[in-house]
Amino acid sequence: MMRRFDFRRALLGAILGLGASSSALGQSLDLASARIIDLTHPFDSKTIYWPTSPSGFELKPLFNGVTKGGFFFAANSFCSPEHGGTHLDAPRHFAQGHWTSADIPIERFVGPAVVIDISAKAAENSDYRLQPEDIAAFEAAHGRIGEGAIVLLRTGWSTRWGDRKAYLGDDAPGDASHLHFPGFGAEAAALLANERRVRMIGLDTASVDHGPSQDFPVHRIVAAADVSGLENLANLEQLPPTGAIVFALPMKITNGTGGPARIIAVIPR
Amino acid sequence: MMRRFDFRRALLGAILGLGASSSALGQSLDLASARIIDLTHPFDSKTIYWPTSPSGFELKPLFNGVTKGGFFFAANSFCSPEHGGTHLDAPRHFAQGHWTSADIPIERFVGPAVVIDISAKAAENSDYRLQPEDIAAFEAAHGRIGEGAIVLLRTGWSTRWGDRKAYLGDDAPGDASHLHFPGFGAEAAALLANERRVRMIGLDTASVDHGPSQDFPVHRIVAAADVSGLENLANLEQLPPTGAIVFALPMKITNGTGGPARIIAVIPR
Repeated sequence: MMRRFDFRRALLGAILGLGASSSALGQSLDLASARIIDLTHPFDSKTIYWPTSPSGFELKPLFNGVTKGGFFFAANSFCSPEHGGTHLDAPRHFAQGHWTSADIPIERFVGPAVVIDISAKAAENSDYRLQPEDIAAFEAAHGRIGEGAIVLLRTGWSTRWGDRKAYLGDDAPGDASHLHFPGFGAEAAALLANERRVRMIGLDTASVDHGPSQDFPVHRIVAAADVSGLENLANLEQLPPTGAIVFALPMKITNGTGGPARIIAVIPR
Repeated sequence: MMRRFDFRRALLGAILGLGASSSALGQSLDLASARIIDLTHPFDSKTIYWPTSPSGFELKPLFNGVTKGGFFFAANSFCSPEHGGTHLDAPRHFAQGHWTSADIPIERFVGPAVVIDISAKAAENSDYRLQPEDIAAFEAAHGRIGEGAIVLLRTGWSTRWGDRKAYLGDDAPGDASHLHFPGFGAEAAALLANERRVRMIGLDTASVDHGPSQDFPVHRIVAAADVSGLENLANLEQLPPTGAIVFALPMKITNGTGGPARIIAVIPR
């Protein structure tokens, strides 16, 4: 407990710009219960990739044991398509000439989380798409979505993670023509990207477009606006509608169209 | 400028737990100049790996052009050993049974940065190792290193990044027996891991042990204490000795001994 407490004081004290002797330091002590939530699924042989992906995640042990020097050592190599598991879609994924993974300004990976819960509607209709009316309802309850927000769509699908057929709607290898899962709608995506000017969008399914999509309008709309996407998120049910801060840090791949990302949310209280 | 300002207000307001109408919101406006520094080198064919690594970073384009549907699309696959470029060493790398990349508690990836500058000594002696006296001198100037800190060693070596021979001291493929670069010393590492109980250590060279090391005492000491390492960091010269907050988020690899990490520092003022 002491370690946790000290850490929060240090973290929040530093963000507040307070020295250890500042009289205002007491203010940060109210936030000792701040939590960090991991929004990331692990990468392993069960990690879900798009049905047409040439491969999944492959880990190759290079060494695992006691060396000639007498000490333990272990190291691996791995291969992965960029777009599988919990990952980033860079604008370059669907917009020629736009930012690659390594081009995206670092400030774009950090922002206040806005969590829109459509899990009840998605439970009724697995192909449900976020509508402008859903955004209006969210804003009526929680205030207008601010410029620079990171909008996370909670569909409830992460409870299906690990079950390919339940998660994607179909598990036929190489065939992406019979998928079913919820997503953003094109109008809602345009509203978020172009009017609210959000920093990123993300969700707990395999694609920002819903399963049946074959022309990926949401991907294209957000990429054209230099808004990145986050897919296959975990633990969104642990986030409040507003108030968390997301840090979504992807691998910095030169010429990357996306890639594995470690994504966390910091909840101040 | 307006976007940047609004973002900082939103971010810091959220951390402070302040609503938009809070009278205390003005306080966060003083921090409008907060900056985010990317401490990460990009992954590409020039990324530096250990001389005995079986391969470097390999990017394989899967598609890059206009689809049958008439829209642009691009995606890649990639392969990489875990330990190259800007990456994390999990405790499992050198300590049997200790945390893998996916095991490390998420709170361990975030903490107040302590930046110890040995670049002058390293310029004189490229095999220099951080000594307990260097830590004592740092603490005399900046205060005791707190539990949970992330201690970053600035050696100046990141200016050599891209030049294998200058960075590693030798560029003979497959031969790691003639390397020269600075690092942590074993006594200093033990002090940081076991007495100061820091969260992570990191530096701007290829290894937390200095180049000539063949038995890697620093790796073994910190791994045994469940302290992770960060290697091949960039831009440490942009950080203050104290006051920044590090977010070092690695790929979440099941059974991983480490892996690519995107590492940033948030400087409040």
